[in-house]
Amino acid sequence: MKKKGIGKIALLLALTDVDVEKLQHFYESKNYVIFKGQAGSMDAKKIVAAIETAASREDIIRENYHEEHALYHAIIEALSGYCRGQVMLGEVLRTAGLTFTIVRGNLLEDDISSGNWIAVVLYGQIGSPRRGFEHEAVGMGIQPI
Amino acid sequence: MKKKGIGKIALLLALTDVDVEKLQHFYESKNYVIFKGQAGSMDAKKIVAAIETAASREDIIRENYHEEHALYHAIIEALSGYCRGQVMLGEVLRTAGLTFTIVRGNLLEDDISSGNWIAVVLYGQIGSPRRGFEHEAVGMGIQPI
Amino acid sequence: MKKKGIGKIALLLALTDVDVEKLQHFYESKNYVIFKGQAGSMDAKKIVAAIETAASREDIIRENYHEEHALYHAIIEALSGYCRGQVMLGEVLRTAGLTFTIVRGNLLEDDISSGNWIAVVLYGQIGSPRRGFEHEAVGMGIQPI
Amino acid sequence: MKKKGIGKIALLLALTDVDVEKLQHFYESKNYVIFKGQAGSMDAKKIVAAIETAASREDIIRENYHEEHALYHAIIEALSGYCRGQVMLGEVLRTAGLTFTIVRGNLLEDDISSGNWIAVVLYGQIGSPRRGFEHEAVGMGIQPI
Amino acid sequence: MKKKGIGKIALLLALTDVDVEKLQHFYESKNYVIFKGQAGSMDAKKIVAAIETAASREDIIRENYHEEHALYHAIIEALSGYCRGQVMLGEVLRTAGLTFTIVRGNLLEDDISSGNWIAVVLYGQIGSPRRGFEHEAVGMGIQPI
Amino acid sequence: MKKKGIGKIALLLALTDVDVEKLQHFYESKNYVIFKGQAGSMDAKKIVAAIETAASREDIIRENYHEEHALYHAIIEALSGYCRGQVMLGEVLRTAGLTFTIVRGNLLEDDISSGNWIAVVLYGQIGSPRRGFEHEAVGMGIQPI
Repeated sequence: MKKKGIGKIALLLALTDVDVEKLQHFYESKNYVIFKGQAGSMDAKKIVAAIETAASREDIIRENYHEEHALYHAIIEALSGYCRGQVMLGEVLRTAGLTFTIVRGNLLEDDISSGNWIAVVLYGQIGSPRRGFEHEAVGMGIQPI
Repeated sequence: MKKKGIGKIALLLALTDVDVEKLQHFYESKNYVIFKGQAGSMDAKKIVAAIETAASREDIIRENYHEEHALYHAIIEALSGYCRGQVMLGEVLRTAGLTFTIVRGNLLEDDISSGNWIAVVLYGQIGSPRRGFEHEAVGMGIQPI
Repeated sequence: MKKKGIGKIALLLALTDVDVEKLQHFYESKNYVIFKGQAGSMDAKKIVAAIETAASREDIIRENYHEEHALYHAIIEALSGYCRGQVMLGEVLRTAGLTFTIVRGNLLEDDISSGNWIAVVLYGQIGSPRRGFEHEAVGMGIQPI
Repeated sequence: MKKKGIGKIALLLALTDVDVEKLQHFYESKNYVIFKGQAGSMDAKKIVAAIETAASREDIIRENYHEEHALYHAIIEALSGYCRGQVMLGEVLRTAGLTFTIVRGNLLEDDISSGNWIAVVLYGQIGSPRRGFEHEAVGMGIQPI
Repeated sequence: MKKKGIGKIALLLALTDVDVEKLQHFYESKNYVIFKGQAGSMDAKKIVAAIETAASREDIIRENYHEEHALYHAIIEALSGYCRGQVMLGEVLRTAGLTFTIVRGNLLEDDISSGNWIAVVLYGQIGSPRRGFEHEAVGMGIQPI
Repeated sequence: MKKKGIGKIALLLALTDVDVEKLQHFYESKNYVIFKGQAGSMDAKKIVAAIETAASREDIIRENYHEEHALYHAIIEALSGYCRGQVMLGEVLRTAGLTFTIVRGNLLEDDISSGNWIAVVLYGQIGSPRRGFEHEAVGMGIQPI
């Protein structure tokens, strides 16, 4: 079996509803720091804030600008993929409800030489602010940290 | 267990290395039409062409403009997420090597009323045209068909 | 005389000040469903909402996500053309006052085989929120429905 | 009847198949300089070049950078509207076949105080490089000159 | 020593903390009209407004749409460079504090034949709304006037 | 006198024609690693390659993906500012001739706690591939390294 990348780990955790804790513990034993949370808003900055707050509270990043910058860029890249182009939600009358995962550790599983990276994945629904008028979206950003 | 969306089906198939056929048959039994392939290029149009060709050859879409338009927009949205913004590869000296999945069927598993949709997922590596100087990326586009 | 496309019908209706009803009836007799309205705002989402509301009220689209999705994407493409790039109005201190047309029917006049499509055209003024400091803009989005 | 803007003049000329010369002469008598041509390519720069060449050859702009800059920006804005976002054709496996109009004169018909402007309109087809797999698009750029 | 362009004049004035007046007087003696100011906001439209207001108040542009349009496009291009892509600040939870310069005059120093242009430069900090979590950014827009 | 940021150092070096070596030695004595070069092309990827090659040859970055990724993103951000939006040159019939600077060191002069960053500045001309039909542009990207 091939070594997984940090992105696949973050994606699988975001997509999985069963055995999340088991998967999380497995990768934590390989020195990944992991958080899975939820956010929903018509306001992109609230989603950014929810992820930044979680990352600080869970000690995934240290309180310095170097690491905050890496996290911020990973979030914006993930949002850009989620929105498929322009990062806009309420401004164009749409809303997002999503699960996010933050994973910090080696770019490649079991490969210390691949260095320390951070991955942010967003997976959820995007659409009109009206129940059932929405479909799935995904976005991922990966940055060295 | 919650009903899966067509996007999650396409994502899980793109991410899985084991039991792909089993997963594929399971969703085919629920009336999804599925294809998983590979593409790699510095040239985004070759990736578009590879996915369009596969979709035609595997009869995932009918040979009319209505359906080709839906597929094309799903591909471009997926590429836009994969590139996180501007759809550019070689133009900015980067390359992509990826697995793609095309899934056609109900927006929600076991829910005929959710209508007929097409999902395209891209998952793979993006980076400098130099071995090991690349990280993972993901993109997904979903369109009614 | 060449067959007109659905886009040209929507454009001519948006541009015409005289004989609008005559033109509208002519195309309605060819099974097009047509609406012409006005919207103005510094807030792009209000323009989206005005067009979506008109389309529902006038029964141009059915109340399902499949059709709402086609309409929404046609509106966003039209706005993207109108704004020439990023969909932003008040965020960059500009405002829009416009006429919109929604047309549903065959992609090509008198050609049933061309399938059922929806076109949204925006034509009006864009500029500084100050009388006379504005020029014309146009945008069109076309989607299969 | 309301005064027409330079954009509406350029749009109507691009859309009209009948009485083009009559319409053109009418606006030339109001001191507009007008050209209508055709361009088609998978290569956006060939469309830019076709319009720039026509504008020079027809003496719509003078051979200085001030005027060339205004024309260039009007073309790029028109292309951006035509492509609805990123200016890309062949790069994402699509092609354009279009009619363009260039109109130079007052921003508002019969209103010298509105100053001298240039409008570029593109109207035509965009789509897959395969006959019939294409729909209409429109784009317009307006700049002071 | 090579002739400076209007852009370099605007950039040097924005970057300089010492001898600003001396530099300003030197270029004013060469018929440049110059203003240097400050703006800071999470709201891009407030930065646009601050620069437009300064340009009017300091008589850098005349009160007509022709000139206001040139200024507006120079500002938006400068903001687009400052934001490196999408013009967004608070919408993605970041803020800007910057020095701006507006310079009007010949495109090239001492070269009347190069025509009359306007340059807008933004130089300052961009980042998280949290002291010290920010880095420098620059943007410049140049338009014929 | 205020501490300079790494961006201002890179900008001043890019803008200065006189005393470049003196300025460079001054900042090298403060532990900055600095390179100033030239690049010109209608092809954005050649500009990317020129900067990446210079950075490797001059040992500004180490040969690992972590550092190459930081440099690459700084280059793309600088190009995005230079192009004011979409990173495109020849694709839209324009060309760039520019001076670039790469500076590596503390985010703030004489402040080790501000960490290690890399700044890339592009300053030069952008325009039509025709002598004299071009104006200045600037772009800067800054990344933690």
